[in-house]
Amino acid sequence: MTQELSNNWFLDKESDTKWILHRVRRHLAAFRTRYQAVELLDTYDCGLTLVLDGRVQSSQLDEHIYHEALVHPAMLAHPEPRRVLILGGGEGATLREVLKHPSVRQAVMVDLDRELVEFCKEHLKSWHQGAFEEPRAKLLYQDAFKYLRRPGPKFDVIISDISDPTEGGPAVMAYTREFFQEVRERLSPQGLFVTQATEALMSPHEVLSVIYRTVKSVFEVAECYVEYIPSFVCLWGWVVGSRMHRPSALSAQELSRRIAQRGLKLRFYSPQMQQRLFSLPPYLQGRLRRQRQVATAQEPARVYGGQR
Amino acid sequence: MTQELSNNWFLDKESDTKWILHRVRRHLAAFRTRYQAVELLDTYDCGLTLVLDGRVQSSQLDEHIYHEALVHPAMLAHPEPRRVLILGGGEGATLREVLKHPSVRQAVMVDLDRELVEFCKEHLKSWHQGAFEEPRAKLLYQDAFKYLRRPGPKFDVIISDISDPTEGGPAVMAYTREFFQEVRERLSPQGLFVTQATEALMSPHEVLSVIYRTVKSVFEVAECYVEYIPSFVCLWGWVVGSRMHRPSALSAQELSRRIAQRGLKLRFYSPQMQQRLFSLPPYLQGRLRRQRQVATAQEPARVYGGQR
Amino acid sequence: MTQELSNNWFLDKESDTKWILHRVRRHLAAFRTRYQAVELLDTYDCGLTLVLDGRVQSSQLDEHIYHEALVHPAMLAHPEPRRVLILGGGEGATLREVLKHPSVRQAVMVDLDRELVEFCKEHLKSWHQGAFEEPRAKLLYQDAFKYLRRPGPKFDVIISDISDPTEGGPAVMAYTREFFQEVRERLSPQGLFVTQATEALMSPHEVLSVIYRTVKSVFEVAECYVEYIPSFVCLWGWVVGSRMHRPSALSAQELSRRIAQRGLKLRFYSPQMQQRLFSLPPYLQGRLRRQRQVATAQEPARVYGGQR
Amino acid sequence: MTQELSNNWFLDKESDTKWILHRVRRHLAAFRTRYQAVELLDTYDCGLTLVLDGRVQSSQLDEHIYHEALVHPAMLAHPEPRRVLILGGGEGATLREVLKHPSVRQAVMVDLDRELVEFCKEHLKSWHQGAFEEPRAKLLYQDAFKYLRRPGPKFDVIISDISDPTEGGPAVMAYTREFFQEVRERLSPQGLFVTQATEALMSPHEVLSVIYRTVKSVFEVAECYVEYIPSFVCLWGWVVGSRMHRPSALSAQELSRRIAQRGLKLRFYSPQMQQRLFSLPPYLQGRLRRQRQVATAQEPARVYGGQR
Repeated sequence: MTQELSNNWFLDKESDTKWILHRVRRHLAAFRTRYQAVELLDTYDCGLTLVLDGRVQSSQLDEHIYHEALVHPAMLAHPEPRRVLILGGGEGATLREVLKHPSVRQAVMVDLDRELVEFCKEHLKSWHQGAFEEPRAKLLYQDAFKYLRRPGPKFDVIISDISDPTEGGPAVMAYTREFFQEVRERLSPQGLFVTQATEALMSPHEVLSVIYRTVKSVFEVAECYVEYIPSFVCLWGWVVGSRMHRPSALSAQELSRRIAQRGLKLRFYSPQMQQRLFSLPPYLQGRLRRQRQVATAQEPARVYGGQR
Repeated sequence: MTQELSNNWFLDKESDTKWILHRVRRHLAAFRTRYQAVELLDTYDCGLTLVLDGRVQSSQLDEHIYHEALVHPAMLAHPEPRRVLILGGGEGATLREVLKHPSVRQAVMVDLDRELVEFCKEHLKSWHQGAFEEPRAKLLYQDAFKYLRRPGPKFDVIISDISDPTEGGPAVMAYTREFFQEVRERLSPQGLFVTQATEALMSPHEVLSVIYRTVKSVFEVAECYVEYIPSFVCLWGWVVGSRMHRPSALSAQELSRRIAQRGLKLRFYSPQMQQRLFSLPPYLQGRLRRQRQVATAQEPARVYGGQR
Repeated sequence: MTQELSNNWFLDKESDTKWILHRVRRHLAAFRTRYQAVELLDTYDCGLTLVLDGRVQSSQLDEHIYHEALVHPAMLAHPEPRRVLILGGGEGATLREVLKHPSVRQAVMVDLDRELVEFCKEHLKSWHQGAFEEPRAKLLYQDAFKYLRRPGPKFDVIISDISDPTEGGPAVMAYTREFFQEVRERLSPQGLFVTQATEALMSPHEVLSVIYRTVKSVFEVAECYVEYIPSFVCLWGWVVGSRMHRPSALSAQELSRRIAQRGLKLRFYSPQMQQRLFSLPPYLQGRLRRQRQVATAQEPARVYGGQR
Repeated sequence: MTQELSNNWFLDKESDTKWILHRVRRHLAAFRTRYQAVELLDTYDCGLTLVLDGRVQSSQLDEHIYHEALVHPAMLAHPEPRRVLILGGGEGATLREVLKHPSVRQAVMVDLDRELVEFCKEHLKSWHQGAFEEPRAKLLYQDAFKYLRRPGPKFDVIISDISDPTEGGPAVMAYTREFFQEVRERLSPQGLFVTQATEALMSPHEVLSVIYRTVKSVFEVAECYVEYIPSFVCLWGWVVGSRMHRPSALSAQELSRRIAQRGLKLRFYSPQMQQRLFSLPPYLQGRLRRQRQVATAQEPARVYGGQR
């Protein structure tokens, strides 16, 4: 299918009352794995776009913003991350960013969905850029929660890049206290955990602050940060948890030093961006402060996902 | 691509102020021939749908309504059609209907677009049902207007199944007096001509009445008829012209007799449907009566086609 | 609000997979009565448009088609309708058409919704054209079903112009066998009943044939007819029931005679249109024939109404 | 119109290939002034929303973010702003923020559109909060460019809150070098100028960097800053110009001191937000650095505005 489609639109429902229509140039793939529906679109505004279960997962336009923001604050806050665990992250771009840190001896990536990962290996080369082939990378096709609960080695950094906790979707458990407790067990004492944490909304239906509160209920330190991701058409959030390290505590000078020392080549992240990301708008600060809800296996948090 | 798309829509702009959104289950093909953009969609409401230059051309749901309504009124009004000419008609369904009439010795189909026809041969089997393989069928890849202007044999019925005269599109000339005059030259004295004639609108931008007036300026007899085509989401029009035969003049009894005699197996057309199609709503009758504009090569008629 | 809106659209969901977007020039009113949500829009394609509970009820462009098709087949099939009952019909246009028949001594209109009717009286003058003021008109604000069940006079024609039986909506009961049985009790022996009967679909979810079957389960004679209504963007259906009179049995000559004798001034209806309306496409004939479901109070028929 | 609309949407076209649909609860007003089309919508996601010429101007949800970000960086960078000029700013919220600074002796607001301002006075009370009534406020209904070109007093801060430079729209001149030169003439030596500067895009059609370059071609100092505005569904930009003052040069301590000293009560702005706003993502930094185009009266910059 090499011809541009005539007048075809992907409808991304941010809510029942706010819809984004992306005009689609080409449909490159659509299939169902054992776990989820996968589409690869080429949109006019965002280029190649991976859609999982009807939601934009990442796009050629700005996947580097999302993935650098996910990986580097936690990785840089650790003085010398040697062993890193990635949960989810099928596109391979999280792995790509992790492996930029030369101290990393091994990066274990645990993704449930073999078919998705194999599709990404073949079709999203600009995402993974060969990271899967690195000897330091180890790829396991397992359920993240099961992997965490089995005895195993500790990690310096654990990065959760699992899709949103949509009602009825497979990812709901990955945003509960029980999950974060298992993560904590598998972190070395100096270790840091970071998870993508859904959209930052001004509305009361917002889930980011629940994830923040839940991480905070498990870890001594919890920090939230946000950035605008054009292909998501919204402000996106991440949450870090650790026993002792606080990414925002690093001065710009120290960050610069670590970036230089590690020889990181980054397109988006920088000490200046770190300042930007961790400076939360007051409406978010307020929510984080006031939120009391902790997500549990019994009462998980769930983002809007109706009517897709 | 065997998986259903998640939330993808084909936008069919009926005008700048009325849009139809068809949810698309699958995109089966999209390519550009030398003459036009071709898409094959599978929509939830209409099934397989052929889209040319952004407009629904015909769909699995109701192509039989469109094609039977196009072909049989003219074919049945002729006492014994032996030689039939089809202009356009790439899907092969017009040819399929023509060949149902056992008196037909030869059906010549003249379509400009070899790539489209070859695509239809392969992918729209339920449309043509093998008609292209019939020994009575003769397929020429030529421009219809050029074909008409060259000296050649006369035909008993000429059927024009060419896409809408969209501004800037390739079909504008096929709805002009000059074109219809060439058609008349190639008709036998008892011959009938029929052309698809665009949407029947209640609005003043309506083109159907201009086509009717233009046919009427060339032929002794001109008749217009309409039917609702669900996948077009509107009332559709056709215009017949001839020197002497008036389809609406045949009684239901005579029509029944001819259908039986010819052994026609039809899904939509019947004497009762003929009555329905030729009974025009008064708003259309009024427009046909009042319309004075004749489309010419210099001042052709053109349907809405902006913003696709 | 005299200025045109900039880029505002009314979304009419025909189904979950087919949406119509009408661009709105002006919003003239929006309020909730005790029974339903009422909007008056001015759309570019249809002009003034009355929307009840999110569905187009009737529009300036073509309300005359809908209302003439609803009223005249039954009224003309009765040799001399003197007493007529209208159920629903808040706009007053059904009443307007009924009162055109000079034999009518009294037209009783029973509509539940006083606020709606009073709004229509004031804002839809081109619909009712003063019909409410006629001495022959009698307007009652009651529930139609309750009115029917109370003892009372018989009627020559009963016309049900009640909104669609949407899931959870107030009109579901008006399309059940129980309702039609009460209607039958209130008809004079020569009387005719007609009801609007929802959209004529090619899909299996279609309700028109259920209404037809239900009328047929109560009356000796049942007939279905359809016409394209541009503002509904679909083919619309009506069903007639009676003990003896069959509208389609009247010849065009007799219809012409009655129209002339009664001095009816009509914009849409005519003997020719009668032929058109009662000539059903085979796909509808097939459904009517095959449908076995009868709607009852326990198991009523319901049209699509989700997600409005 | 106190009832919620049933299924009505405002279509905000960010480009020809990316559309935002906001569901509208109520249409509160729509009229045309001498200069522009004005609408007041109540949307589910953003509450009261002012739309000018089809574009969201500001909304109840987040107008405080937009207006605080527009006003305070420049006002705080000036040690003691006494005379302030506001160009545009019809809602009165820019005036509201300016008057929070107690050093201000006079704030002159020059808006072309008396009808719009009078509408805002009456209907957007939560925007202006009575600012128009303050004795320090002086409101002139004039063209901003004409006002600037006439001899007059100097100002310490000039704030341009004029709508986007849309093709064919009235605001195109307010984003040209000629305009900024007149602004410079009317600034006191220590004075600062700030202008809203359209959406920050990752695409090459982006205009923000042209405005930045144009300000930079006129002033010794130019700085750009951005923030996400939910109701605009994008990152928004502003540009500051001055002879000497650079807002980003103020330390957080000094900013805190000034905010406290001036007794500013702010909902969004803070020293931390200042850091966030002036930390530009690298893709924007790159564009600002590489952009060479300066907008002039002859060749102005223009944002997307087609097809509204």
